[in-house]
Amino acid sequence: MIAIVAYGSPVAGRASWLADALGDGFSVTTLDYAADSAQKHLALANADGVVTVRWHAGLGDAGNVRLVQVPGVGCDEIEVGALPANATLCNVRGHGAGTAEYVVLQLLEWCHGLGAAEADFRAGSWQRSSRFGAPPHRELCGATVGIIGYGEIGRAVAERLSPFGVRLLAANRSRISDETISGWFGLDQLAEMLAACDFAVLAIPLVEATHSLIGEPELNALGADGVLVNIARGPVVDETALWNALRNRGLGGAVLDVWYQYPDEETPRRRPSRFPFQDLPNVRMTPHIAGWTDGTVARRWLDIAENCRRLATGRPFLNVVRRAPGHVP
Amino acid sequence: MIAIVAYGSPVAGRASWLADALGDGFSVTTLDYAADSAQKHLALANADGVVTVRWHAGLGDAGNVRLVQVPGVGCDEIEVGALPANATLCNVRGHGAGTAEYVVLQLLEWCHGLGAAEADFRAGSWQRSSRFGAPPHRELCGATVGIIGYGEIGRAVAERLSPFGVRLLAANRSRISDETISGWFGLDQLAEMLAACDFAVLAIPLVEATHSLIGEPELNALGADGVLVNIARGPVVDETALWNALRNRGLGGAVLDVWYQYPDEETPRRRPSRFPFQDLPNVRMTPHIAGWTDGTVARRWLDIAENCRRLATGRPFLNVVRRAPGHVP
Repeated sequence: MIAIVAYGSPVAGRASWLADALGDGFSVTTLDYAADSAQKHLALANADGVVTVRWHAGLGDAGNVRLVQVPGVGCDEIEVGALPANATLCNVRGHGAGTAEYVVLQLLEWCHGLGAAEADFRAGSWQRSSRFGAPPHRELCGATVGIIGYGEIGRAVAERLSPFGVRLLAANRSRISDETISGWFGLDQLAEMLAACDFAVLAIPLVEATHSLIGEPELNALGADGVLVNIARGPVVDETALWNALRNRGLGGAVLDVWYQYPDEETPRRRPSRFPFQDLPNVRMTPHIAGWTDGTVARRWLDIAENCRRLATGRPFLNVVRRAPGHVP
Repeated sequence: MIAIVAYGSPVAGRASWLADALGDGFSVTTLDYAADSAQKHLALANADGVVTVRWHAGLGDAGNVRLVQVPGVGCDEIEVGALPANATLCNVRGHGAGTAEYVVLQLLEWCHGLGAAEADFRAGSWQRSSRFGAPPHRELCGATVGIIGYGEIGRAVAERLSPFGVRLLAANRSRISDETISGWFGLDQLAEMLAACDFAVLAIPLVEATHSLIGEPELNALGADGVLVNIARGPVVDETALWNALRNRGLGGAVLDVWYQYPDEETPRRRPSRFPFQDLPNVRMTPHIAGWTDGTVARRWLDIAENCRRLATGRPFLNVVRRAPGHVP
């Protein structure tokens, strides 16, 4: 019998789903964050795998645990040094489809402006109708879209945009064979690519080399008619340069789902930047929700169940973040 | 020299573009709706082609006119019986791309609800973020979308939806070879198809046989979780049945761009139905703007220029609505 512990409130609600998915040969139990030390030690001492967003020193030796499975991408609440010696740390992805949908939706909405059209019409006005001589609105067809970072998310965006009659450019460390992309650029050629773009989509991981990858020269290259879409991480774009470019209209607009500062329990309404982006009319802003869809959750838990099965059969885990120190490949 | 007259305010603004596009061998002049009869007779007597939304008795014999070119789809202001004997009536389309973008945008927005997310976040709330335990929102991936009417617009919708991981069904008079469609239905099998759909997109022309094609049984089949998108013509859906289904939540929701009544000069804010759809929260409504994009206008004027060239060379016109009575094919 393989013992899986679902630890903490973010995962407890899925324990019964996981038990059903795994079936015979597995036990799935829940363990509260608020349980006392003795309870935690006991539960984890008998566990083979733990599904959790949080791991820290003091949870006991948990010497049987061979899988610590995070139910999302981020492992920032996992104290890696405190992980059991035999445990491999895994995360899950699965947010490509939802995030790519977010990007296509935002590009289309930027062009068509249906939110404003809906509000006008609901209030009784036909002023946006051609029957009243309204000028046509923009469409996405014919635009040039540059994708910066051509990994899982970048490819998912390109795939969905490809039938829309757009020209797709991409910038990546390495050039990838993909016929939907009509122009490839290195990360040292961003200004050149952005000068040709109507929209630029940031889908590149935040690492030291990509911190402030987009600064004043790149924003100027994208220009007064260009729109930046950031679904990567806030600090990939220089915060001050972005604020200045948007406020001065050196940059046409931005769609921002990722931010420079996040709320915590003491400041639940903390603004997402030290600059008041919410005061700018040329910004669309959402609270880091692009990939947070029912489909993402479903795909993630299928991968979590698969890793629990691999724990039982000894096959290599999916999405390894850190292999167990004692692991022999 | 081929003489083209751009007649009336809806087309006058494009006359100089048309002159440039046609170049040598053509003259393009404008004629005001407000011109007097003598001016109109003179201008039209010398014309070879007329670009106009309007034609009526009393415009003179215009015996040289071989092309009356409407700059849109609808010919409802053309008095066909009053057309010159040698004139072929043509319209233009070109609204497939813009309309299909509208449909994809509305389906994505229905799932992701970014309009509401944006408003919340701009006001300071992070409540839709997973970091605050927010439930995930819906994604389009995995949904079943039924397309009713598989002409230019229906195909344009299917093409753009195909990379989104949706299952596509279609209902049409005739079955068309198209591998993006996984299930075909006749127009007498609509309830069967709609019962399987999360979204249904109406893209079928309004003719006698399609009047009230969608009634109470079809709306019930689409059901409390289903969403109807109408970018065809209002009366394809029974007005009373639609109102009742939306109000009683027998139908989950509707996206409506086309309507049952339109404003005129005396009632510019006329409501689009005798029922107050604007009071329903499960309706997204726009004033017949789906295909009214800059790209549509550009594609239409390219076709208008092409028909003027065909007038000069004698090749068959594009988009013939009514061939000249004296025409020998």
